[in-house]
Amino acid sequence: MNFASDNWAGATPEVMAALGRANDGAAPAYGNDALTRRVTAMFSEVFETDVELWFTATGTASNSLGLAGLSRPGGLVLCSSEAHIHVDEWGATEFQSGGMKLVPMPQVAGRVSAATLAETLGRFPEGNRFGVPVALSLTNATECGTVYAPEQVRELAGMARERGLSVHMDGARFANAVAATRASPAELTWRAGVDFLSFGGTKNGCWAAEAIVVFSPGKLRDLAARRQRAGHTFSKSRFVAAQFEAYLTDGNWLRWAGHANAMAERLRAGLRGAKAARLGWESEANEVFAVLSTEAIARVRAAGGTLYEWPAEALGEALGEGEELVRLVTSWATKADEVERFLGMV
Amino acid sequence: MNFASDNWAGATPEVMAALGRANDGAAPAYGNDALTRRVTAMFSEVFETDVELWFTATGTASNSLGLAGLSRPGGLVLCSSEAHIHVDEWGATEFQSGGMKLVPMPQVAGRVSAATLAETLGRFPEGNRFGVPVALSLTNATECGTVYAPEQVRELAGMARERGLSVHMDGARFANAVAATRASPAELTWRAGVDFLSFGGTKNGCWAAEAIVVFSPGKLRDLAARRQRAGHTFSKSRFVAAQFEAYLTDGNWLRWAGHANAMAERLRAGLRGAKAARLGWESEANEVFAVLSTEAIARVRAAGGTLYEWPAEALGEALGEGEELVRLVTSWATKADEVERFLGMV
Amino acid sequence: MNFASDNWAGATPEVMAALGRANDGAAPAYGNDALTRRVTAMFSEVFETDVELWFTATGTASNSLGLAGLSRPGGLVLCSSEAHIHVDEWGATEFQSGGMKLVPMPQVAGRVSAATLAETLGRFPEGNRFGVPVALSLTNATECGTVYAPEQVRELAGMARERGLSVHMDGARFANAVAATRASPAELTWRAGVDFLSFGGTKNGCWAAEAIVVFSPGKLRDLAARRQRAGHTFSKSRFVAAQFEAYLTDGNWLRWAGHANAMAERLRAGLRGAKAARLGWESEANEVFAVLSTEAIARVRAAGGTLYEWPAEALGEALGEGEELVRLVTSWATKADEVERFLGMV
Amino acid sequence: MNFASDNWAGATPEVMAALGRANDGAAPAYGNDALTRRVTAMFSEVFETDVELWFTATGTASNSLGLAGLSRPGGLVLCSSEAHIHVDEWGATEFQSGGMKLVPMPQVAGRVSAATLAETLGRFPEGNRFGVPVALSLTNATECGTVYAPEQVRELAGMARERGLSVHMDGARFANAVAATRASPAELTWRAGVDFLSFGGTKNGCWAAEAIVVFSPGKLRDLAARRQRAGHTFSKSRFVAAQFEAYLTDGNWLRWAGHANAMAERLRAGLRGAKAARLGWESEANEVFAVLSTEAIARVRAAGGTLYEWPAEALGEALGEGEELVRLVTSWATKADEVERFLGMV
Repeated sequence: MNFASDNWAGATPEVMAALGRANDGAAPAYGNDALTRRVTAMFSEVFETDVELWFTATGTASNSLGLAGLSRPGGLVLCSSEAHIHVDEWGATEFQSGGMKLVPMPQVAGRVSAATLAETLGRFPEGNRFGVPVALSLTNATECGTVYAPEQVRELAGMARERGLSVHMDGARFANAVAATRASPAELTWRAGVDFLSFGGTKNGCWAAEAIVVFSPGKLRDLAARRQRAGHTFSKSRFVAAQFEAYLTDGNWLRWAGHANAMAERLRAGLRGAKAARLGWESEANEVFAVLSTEAIARVRAAGGTLYEWPAEALGEALGEGEELVRLVTSWATKADEVERFLGMV
Repeated sequence: MNFASDNWAGATPEVMAALGRANDGAAPAYGNDALTRRVTAMFSEVFETDVELWFTATGTASNSLGLAGLSRPGGLVLCSSEAHIHVDEWGATEFQSGGMKLVPMPQVAGRVSAATLAETLGRFPEGNRFGVPVALSLTNATECGTVYAPEQVRELAGMARERGLSVHMDGARFANAVAATRASPAELTWRAGVDFLSFGGTKNGCWAAEAIVVFSPGKLRDLAARRQRAGHTFSKSRFVAAQFEAYLTDGNWLRWAGHANAMAERLRAGLRGAKAARLGWESEANEVFAVLSTEAIARVRAAGGTLYEWPAEALGEALGEGEELVRLVTSWATKADEVERFLGMV
Repeated sequence: MNFASDNWAGATPEVMAALGRANDGAAPAYGNDALTRRVTAMFSEVFETDVELWFTATGTASNSLGLAGLSRPGGLVLCSSEAHIHVDEWGATEFQSGGMKLVPMPQVAGRVSAATLAETLGRFPEGNRFGVPVALSLTNATECGTVYAPEQVRELAGMARERGLSVHMDGARFANAVAATRASPAELTWRAGVDFLSFGGTKNGCWAAEAIVVFSPGKLRDLAARRQRAGHTFSKSRFVAAQFEAYLTDGNWLRWAGHANAMAERLRAGLRGAKAARLGWESEANEVFAVLSTEAIARVRAAGGTLYEWPAEALGEALGEGEELVRLVTSWATKADEVERFLGMV
Repeated sequence: MNFASDNWAGATPEVMAALGRANDGAAPAYGNDALTRRVTAMFSEVFETDVELWFTATGTASNSLGLAGLSRPGGLVLCSSEAHIHVDEWGATEFQSGGMKLVPMPQVAGRVSAATLAETLGRFPEGNRFGVPVALSLTNATECGTVYAPEQVRELAGMARERGLSVHMDGARFANAVAATRASPAELTWRAGVDFLSFGGTKNGCWAAEAIVVFSPGKLRDLAARRQRAGHTFSKSRFVAAQFEAYLTDGNWLRWAGHANAMAERLRAGLRGAKAARLGWESEANEVFAVLSTEAIARVRAAGGTLYEWPAEALGEALGEGEELVRLVTSWATKADEVERFLGMV
């Protein structure tokens, strides 16, 4: 009953096998190997356009290095108030960009609305005292388990681009968003106006496979040098490439994400019908937010289950006595009987 | 005949096996897993003292994050003019530290002498206009294939500490230094006055296994937060831990480095006796610098061999007509017959 | 009828005379002159405690260099949502501190309440994901013309210190706060728990006279070096010292601020009784916020008067048709008949 | 007998008078006043081309903010090993630029030769491991009292521009260089290939009057925002403008610098003929480097004279027993009889 996080799972057998295959013989370092080139081509195929591909060690690195490529003194990055870049990365973007500010926007279940974005852009007109908006950053799937559909991305990205902003997508759980929306990767990104994507494989069956995928060539200034000095240029680049090779082969990534989403839906279905528990809000990807009794939480933990409490403010209403908001995350490795045991307990 | 770099080799079978074993089941993320704890204990045993252990993605990250933990406005880091931190890292330390300067010192075959260090420290007395020396950074094995023996480290570190500097060791090839000097890891580091070590496994049989090993607890300010915002906190931390587990088990790391050193010595021995080639300088670890004819280089490359030209200034004397300085690097994967074929060709 | 800003006024005759006196002969540079020492002693006397004194070129420099002296990766500075450091300084603190974040807190007429501070501190408990609060920054007089009384500073500073935060006061209009509260400079600062103060003379009769006044010695790391590399160490330091000498002599600074405050009160009194205009909110220092008709604004401007529109959100209620919120600032140079003419027009 | 520094002198009577005139009435802040506009036009006239003009508080600010406008990850700034930006500014350029490196070049009496620049550029070919040269920074007059003639600037700047570098001139003593070379300001700068100039008035009769003069519009990215967040945007901008108005009126600046240069030449002439003292090297501007006996230095100091010892390495030969290298600086305020008294003593 591991619902703590999708990064508690290991790597899939396919990823392990690909690592084993990639281990044969010598290969040029720093991304100049044949496998890295092959994987770049796979990305271009998956996204139906030629992309630039930059491996990094973590999603935090992808987000902050990418956004730093847009940095200006007084630059502002607009994001949701729940955005990982704002809440979890210890000022990574502020640091890498030499002092840009993040502007957190109100969100509902992780999603920023067009009205909110319009209101926010309106606060920073040409010549304002506060700063210059340079980027809109959207997370898909969001930190609250919901997703943006292609038309929602298109609307927000369009508003941002009209004002001259670049558009970033934090895709730590991009596979889950693709699987949940059944949109194509292209529809969810560059066709909807996204300039670059932090593409995460780690939470969905890899060990450490993260990349910046750039759809608008040359948009991010000096990315090669910036990545190098940040210590994110792996020498044995093929070990990342191998993971992504397995990931993208035969639609594995969407199958794994689809499984995680399905397990989450099973949790949601069970909670919708439960008496002693309820959903915090509806979500579509592999994160489920639920209101449980403290007794139920204790039972789950006593049985070896794992989950995290979540700040109650996210709920938008007061918790009852003896209630807690919790986050449940499923992964490629979640088993149906874990879900059933959990539902039985709450 | 791969002599291009030790980071062109893959991972050892032992490392792959350990990764496979570590892949079983769920484990807490961000270093809170049992394997990471076990590996930390292995490090403390190998170094015969309790150490702090911080995984990072690359040696550049270890060097720059560690040194940044000592940062001050106007701070200076003294290093060799050939130091990786000065020559190859695109200002990583300058950036992470918020603008410290590196002070390159003259070196001979990669090593800085006590006289040179004394002269350099003398240029920055208390109250000087230039800045405040905060750290001495030594590379062992050096970028030129030579090593510092424990008594040499002790002398240099002692001079630095007397002036209040902290002492860093860049150990991208630390295993090769230990194997070459036959000193203990402790003798080469904290017993000789080293405060923290960039410990590299990647070049010696791992995929991506790098760590900052801190011997002087608390010396590097806010390292956890600094690593987090630099995007170097792996979520699936056990994939690094697994590599190091295999690395440190049964002295594997020293066996692999010893093999690489032996292959390099075989190259050196062959070159010492050669007519149409010669050693650039004597070295002890797994890098060999040789003067070859351009024809010989062409022959090796035509046969599929790899090696890199090296800036001739390092030689300290003029090259003859039709000669080039080259660097040859051996690894755990270098085979004796590769060496013999190479020697036969030059 | 200049109500645009107190920094539109020139320097007082006393300041000009002091500059003339200071211009005699040679004097050591970089603050090692006798006048700078004498002025430091005057500050210690005014604040009834030994202070460290660091001249800078602007209030932005004082704020950002001071706060940077507390910087940590992941560090947070709590301030009002109207704070100059957050709204007007283009990321100065974020930049100088190497990426700290500002946490804007809701305010009423520029003041943060104890309840708001408590709520904010509660969002960042030990071990939270977001960051580590390192400083509380209060502006006095506030950006909205109101002031904190000593007991209010003491309450807020006490709460901050209990959690380990340092306390900064942005005193761009500190003289106006002292004059308005009739508290002593000491009561408003270190006796109430303030660690360091950005002390501004520029808006109150100087040309360019700003300083960081440190009450807690050693609290701000490496301030001398930090100021030097920021280009804020004036060589002819005595030209700042001379301005402050005139400023602090015979209570000039409080007399000039008192005059500005009195002119503002005359404006407020007139507006309280007006039919076609009203106060936006009550204030105590030299900034007055008023709701005027667009016709009245046009009349004032046609007559050569100056004032600035202010974002209507600050008002907390909707403006009527044809109304605007404006900011009126008085200074040492404002004349009573300017006020009367203005009141006559609106 | 003040030969300590030209920044020990006060402001000229003309500068004081201009400050007094500028003090009349209210004026828009932040450089939007009529006087600042008028002074910008004076600069354009003096330099015979339309320039952008940015006031700052110090030369360190001008240098580092200007160079930061060219910053790139891995960027390199080539300068003399005696350059103020390298030796005296505590990493200002490294900090403001987010981690660029300075590459110190060997110099003779402060001047870098074309051969040295060629050799240095050769060390950083396209694709090198070390970094990307982005700017050449020349100081004129140099830190050693010598000057570059227009043709020397043109040769060096031409080589730099051919490689794509921008060209900066540190003109803390630009007036002395113009006076010494009798070249026009245009010939010494943009006509010779200089893109931007740190123009200093402080050392030559102002209180604090420094500016970045940009000849290549738009070359320095985001300079307005960068200056603002560095705290170098004076609100009462006219106090700088007034100083520069007096400075540039009727050729005052060149008259003052010419006087300083003449006093220095008188020192040099006396030292050339002296028995117990000698010139360290020939110079042309207002800095004189001399070898004196320690007794002579003591005599001067005993008589209230001021001067600074200088690192002996600058001399290029060993000092004799009981000798010291000293720097003597003259200014607009130096009197002929000070020079004569000094010469009489040594």
